[in-house]
Amino acid sequence: MMTKNRLEGFSDGVLAIIITIMVLELKVPQSAGINGLKELLPLFCSYLLGFIYIGIYWNNHHHLFYLTKRVNGVIMWANLHLLFWLSLFPFVTAWVGKNHLSSFSIALYGFVALMAGCSFHLLERAIIADQGVNSLLALALGKDCKEKISLLCYLVSIFLAFVNTWIAVGLFIFVAFLWLVPDRRIENFLATTYSS
Amino acid sequence: MMTKNRLEGFSDGVLAIIITIMVLELKVPQSAGINGLKELLPLFCSYLLGFIYIGIYWNNHHHLFYLTKRVNGVIMWANLHLLFWLSLFPFVTAWVGKNHLSSFSIALYGFVALMAGCSFHLLERAIIADQGVNSLLALALGKDCKEKISLLCYLVSIFLAFVNTWIAVGLFIFVAFLWLVPDRRIENFLATTYSS
Amino acid sequence: MMTKNRLEGFSDGVLAIIITIMVLELKVPQSAGINGLKELLPLFCSYLLGFIYIGIYWNNHHHLFYLTKRVNGVIMWANLHLLFWLSLFPFVTAWVGKNHLSSFSIALYGFVALMAGCSFHLLERAIIADQGVNSLLALALGKDCKEKISLLCYLVSIFLAFVNTWIAVGLFIFVAFLWLVPDRRIENFLATTYSS
Amino acid sequence: MMTKNRLEGFSDGVLAIIITIMVLELKVPQSAGINGLKELLPLFCSYLLGFIYIGIYWNNHHHLFYLTKRVNGVIMWANLHLLFWLSLFPFVTAWVGKNHLSSFSIALYGFVALMAGCSFHLLERAIIADQGVNSLLALALGKDCKEKISLLCYLVSIFLAFVNTWIAVGLFIFVAFLWLVPDRRIENFLATTYSS
Repeated sequence: MMTKNRLEGFSDGVLAIIITIMVLELKVPQSAGINGLKELLPLFCSYLLGFIYIGIYWNNHHHLFYLTKRVNGVIMWANLHLLFWLSLFPFVTAWVGKNHLSSFSIALYGFVALMAGCSFHLLERAIIADQGVNSLLALALGKDCKEKISLLCYLVSIFLAFVNTWIAVGLFIFVAFLWLVPDRRIENFLATTYSS
Repeated sequence: MMTKNRLEGFSDGVLAIIITIMVLELKVPQSAGINGLKELLPLFCSYLLGFIYIGIYWNNHHHLFYLTKRVNGVIMWANLHLLFWLSLFPFVTAWVGKNHLSSFSIALYGFVALMAGCSFHLLERAIIADQGVNSLLALALGKDCKEKISLLCYLVSIFLAFVNTWIAVGLFIFVAFLWLVPDRRIENFLATTYSS
Repeated sequence: MMTKNRLEGFSDGVLAIIITIMVLELKVPQSAGINGLKELLPLFCSYLLGFIYIGIYWNNHHHLFYLTKRVNGVIMWANLHLLFWLSLFPFVTAWVGKNHLSSFSIALYGFVALMAGCSFHLLERAIIADQGVNSLLALALGKDCKEKISLLCYLVSIFLAFVNTWIAVGLFIFVAFLWLVPDRRIENFLATTYSS
Repeated sequence: MMTKNRLEGFSDGVLAIIITIMVLELKVPQSAGINGLKELLPLFCSYLLGFIYIGIYWNNHHHLFYLTKRVNGVIMWANLHLLFWLSLFPFVTAWVGKNHLSSFSIALYGFVALMAGCSFHLLERAIIADQGVNSLLALALGKDCKEKISLLCYLVSIFLAFVNTWIAVGLFIFVAFLWLVPDRRIENFLATTYSS
């Protein structure tokens, strides 16, 4: 009933701000020279990971709405719900960086990542509910293995953080790599559909 | 006479910034672990409420301009007037969170919410004045009960804040719930108009 | 040769950020209650004036590019030059607010306002140079009295600031009122042209 | 396969934020009057240079995507890679300004500039790989001398920073001037192609 343009524009705005807000936490260090850089290293690494995460979400959001024809009130709130959890990334990123990878901060990061993942899934469901299970989008998304694996990794990382923080961090990096290959389901699906 | 695209784009930009600026106030707490999280709880709750409020305004702004065909100077300034009051939300949100719900901060929050509500109403009037009382928009908006109830709640909350802050906060949450159901007046109106 | 859409989108983004960055300076005051609000009053007033100034520029920018068909490299840099001076408004606004209207801070504000005004004029010239002196834009802009008066006021205010700050501030408010009536030259021109 | 609109909109958003974030570092100085301004001078100069650099990238990005018809996953990540290095400009700009042009800070600035330059080159390659070496873009870019000279200057500046910081700074300013003349390759190419 409504066009998707403004929803895309607003989401792009929020994601652009989230991805650049994180760099605001990179304050010029007290120590000059190479020692100052070393001081910043944990914060810089968590900024890099956060940048990749938000980049992944932007890519997937782009693909998702590429196949969405129209939006309704439920989709708009599902999208705002996703943006809410994503907006907490700069905060947990700073927490992890400043507490030098404490167990609690890693678990919190995993929790926010889990909630963001779940809200993306809910957004997909809201769009499919509107467009029908036989829509292009429903067919293109298919079995969404990557999503399920990611959510499982986030869930496990919350508990693993209290056992061994490095394994939990390793899980976050693993999920990032999993998605850095962009979601070819939709690209491939389009290629198959329109070439035949 | 002028197209509405840039007004929508500019408003989306400002609203996207307002909604993400609030999270900047969520500084990493002094205490580590779960105690740090407890420290942040009041600020986090006021961030959550602020996020929902701005989300509501974005949704309603989206619906409003969906039925607006053109803009003029009066509409542009009415829109900037609305954005001015909305831009004060991160400030009053931080004030409420940091002063642990003091009476004065709650009353101030109510005042800004009241002014934002009034300016949204003025914007509606400015658009209807331009499009005519028989325009789609004028018909779709109808009797606007929800708006009147919200404005009354904000007004009452300013005074109630000095009697019992929790009732005032309850009023804010009540208004949020009232609007979380998106403004179906326009959606329903469109459905009825175009299906018949 | 190039379309103006991205230039408009980028400028909207920068102006949206400038207009909301200023509110970041409104920190929650030390004193609670009404005294805290009093503390903030000078900063709040300079925020309000800054908001109106950026709003005026956004309006005029909107009108200006409404009549611009295409952009070239010179127009792109003239536009960035304008955005540079406008991006200094949050800074001088904070300076004026924090120094309680000291002569120097008012003169600095006048200087930035003058440079922004000049760069807007240069942008107009760059567009007319590209479109020709007989273009719609050149005709619509006409004799631009308001611009000349504004630039004169800014120039005078730089010197008056060291004589009497309140007269200088009065000049800023006078210019704001002058422009709050949006630039009807283009609106009226369009109405005349297309109705005949 | 996908349209470029959202990629352009998102990039505009990120670049708009980066270019205005830098001014946030211009805090109101302790000293009042002209001494405060003197204190800020190094930071202001590094802000000015950073503004010009980001402006150059925005201009070139605008030209680049003007000739790009479609985007794929590789282009989207190449673009995010570019935005990552550009997002570090406010940080290195602040570092240079606060450390009064120390050798290390200048070398770091050169390094980030070099990485940004390389990532822009990779983005060009990713687009040409998708569009073919006979595409308009491949022809328009031609031999890209300016790019090669810039990358060389950045590389040299990293080492020169430890010999003489002023020569290194001079190299940065030289590159800025080199690009301030916008990339006429594409403008001229279009003029030639469409006029014949």
